[in-house]
Amino acid sequence: MTIAAAEPVPFTADDYAVRMHRVVDQAVEAGLDGVIVAPGPDLLWLTGYRPTAITERLTMLVLSRSVRPTMVVPTLERPDVEAAKGATCFGIVDWSDGADPYAVAGRLLQPDGRFGISDSTWSMHLLGLQEALPDTRYRALSHSLPMLRAVKDANELGRLAAAGAAADATFGEILHVRFAGRRENDVAADLARLLREFGHEQVDFTVVGSGPNGANPHHEAGDRAIQPGDAVVLDFGGLRYGYGSDTTRTVTVGEPSAEVRRVHEVVRLAQQTAFEAVRPGVSCAEIDRVARGVITEAGYGPQFIHRTGHGIGVTTHEPPYIVEGEELPLKPGMCFSIEPGIYLSGRFGVRIEDIVTVTSDAGQRFNNTDRSLHVVE
Amino acid sequence: MTIAAAEPVPFTADDYAVRMHRVVDQAVEAGLDGVIVAPGPDLLWLTGYRPTAITERLTMLVLSRSVRPTMVVPTLERPDVEAAKGATCFGIVDWSDGADPYAVAGRLLQPDGRFGISDSTWSMHLLGLQEALPDTRYRALSHSLPMLRAVKDANELGRLAAAGAAADATFGEILHVRFAGRRENDVAADLARLLREFGHEQVDFTVVGSGPNGANPHHEAGDRAIQPGDAVVLDFGGLRYGYGSDTTRTVTVGEPSAEVRRVHEVVRLAQQTAFEAVRPGVSCAEIDRVARGVITEAGYGPQFIHRTGHGIGVTTHEPPYIVEGEELPLKPGMCFSIEPGIYLSGRFGVRIEDIVTVTSDAGQRFNNTDRSLHVVE
Repeated sequence: MTIAAAEPVPFTADDYAVRMHRVVDQAVEAGLDGVIVAPGPDLLWLTGYRPTAITERLTMLVLSRSVRPTMVVPTLERPDVEAAKGATCFGIVDWSDGADPYAVAGRLLQPDGRFGISDSTWSMHLLGLQEALPDTRYRALSHSLPMLRAVKDANELGRLAAAGAAADATFGEILHVRFAGRRENDVAADLARLLREFGHEQVDFTVVGSGPNGANPHHEAGDRAIQPGDAVVLDFGGLRYGYGSDTTRTVTVGEPSAEVRRVHEVVRLAQQTAFEAVRPGVSCAEIDRVARGVITEAGYGPQFIHRTGHGIGVTTHEPPYIVEGEELPLKPGMCFSIEPGIYLSGRFGVRIEDIVTVTSDAGQRFNNTDRSLHVVE
Repeated sequence: MTIAAAEPVPFTADDYAVRMHRVVDQAVEAGLDGVIVAPGPDLLWLTGYRPTAITERLTMLVLSRSVRPTMVVPTLERPDVEAAKGATCFGIVDWSDGADPYAVAGRLLQPDGRFGISDSTWSMHLLGLQEALPDTRYRALSHSLPMLRAVKDANELGRLAAAGAAADATFGEILHVRFAGRRENDVAADLARLLREFGHEQVDFTVVGSGPNGANPHHEAGDRAIQPGDAVVLDFGGLRYGYGSDTTRTVTVGEPSAEVRRVHEVVRLAQQTAFEAVRPGVSCAEIDRVARGVITEAGYGPQFIHRTGHGIGVTTHEPPYIVEGEELPLKPGMCFSIEPGIYLSGRFGVRIEDIVTVTSDAGQRFNNTDRSLHVVE
């Protein structure tokens, strides 16, 4: 079955209730007494609630086998929490400025309990809980329940496909803008505008790495004027219907050199081979090894300086990570990037990236623009 | 001496070196072996480095009495770190995907050391350090060194004054736009546009709380059409030259009712009285008590549901917090908001807020627009 991009139906309170139950079940199975979730993608996914800002004031959802799901919130944010889509699925306990929020939260936790805690929870809050209840123990949620959000349901897959289609449409259009003589920032602004035009409500990154800047995989975009002959790495994405896009293509301004052509072909082959290895039961690490094997074989192993990919959902970086050491097996409904690259320091870089989901027996790409080397003007 | 808004000179590597030394000195004085700083405002203030995104990949600066300042960074972000203004003041140790970053970071820490750790450091990173070095101990940086960034130098004060002047200019203009019949979101967009026109590079919040929405102090702005007779809370700010603005005025659409006028006058008096109490040596809590005393005296104590203020600098929420229990004394160069409010649930709210700095013998406001009740159309 092919997953199609879809105008999504809204998530319901039932969707959130199902997710909360799933978390408690998985937590118990993993030997935990519960899970603590601070503002961020896990909380958004579990409750539909995203505070205006993440601050020093404690907000946290407690999911445990012994108490009803309960969110601890600053009094002045209570009305916002009550307006969240999933608010009917949990109780609310508020605390006012001057009170000790960790004492309030602590009353919801078993004094000797073991809890998963969302990765990005501020350390000051974890330290507050550790001090209030010295016999509690904590593990990072992505270590204890790494695949919590990794398997997407049909509604989520439709949104990811829609985000991918919009990113593809953006790439189709960017091939027609002028590159030579314009600054990277100008092309980046074009990418951002196009992502929005094609339905993204949020643009998260618009990398334009021209010439030597392409050899720094975390270069975003700068004032460099793009030159004829440059290889240009274009890596862009954001959120559509709340779910992420993330795709990379490398183009050249005018005809490519033989070396750029050769390196690009190695990366293309690595990406294709890794994609073809995707199916349920194969480990994340194996996909990394397949991509890395092709590049190493071609003599560029040391120039592939990052992992092969990362999961995607309500964030553009989440488990499953496609990296050596991650032995967890792929399951149908998981979604992640496959993005090998080769970086020749001071000269140029090439990266090709698609978002891929696991079907019942293979992989399906959410990015389908041509992966051959395109020439722009 | 009055601090004037200024076009700032850039911070230098020396500025960053001085700050790092100050942190180590203060840490030792507080009984700590050092300080660990993850991406966020503390890292920006200490090094000039702000990563493109804060992710699950460990980046942290270690400042300690036993090793040279050193930043642990993902290999692929190393070039960005090397480009930071303060990069000459610290060493860099990188780690690649697949390696254990906590082992790398752990080599910089005494195995039984006590460290302050920046508040917003992801819990997954703190847990990683606690596991790698079980005998280390940690305290939240804002608890162990709460006033680390609280006293601003002349360059910083000039930037805060400039941000305040821009916020004041924004308020001056917003009085001339139409309120009645337009949506809160429309007026919020006007505020954002004006803040940018007056020099803000970043807009952080544009609260427009009309009628009953004004009674929720964390309401931002929504689709509600503003009505004749509404009290409207306008609370807006962002960053100019990297430093924050944050000011609130409450206006009415057409002539105010006697009740709105009375409540506004109570809040104005509370804000003025608290401002007049500012001088070196007075505690943060005392400023809160002064503001709260005026409001309680008028019978609205239970309707003042938040603290009186918060510090401001490279963020718009930081120590010192002007709240009951915070007994730390004010010092010259500290900057914070004074923002009492009264919230009558379901009806209306009133808040008045200025950013204030402590001079050698008093307070000085960075917001100087008229605090009487303005009527808009």
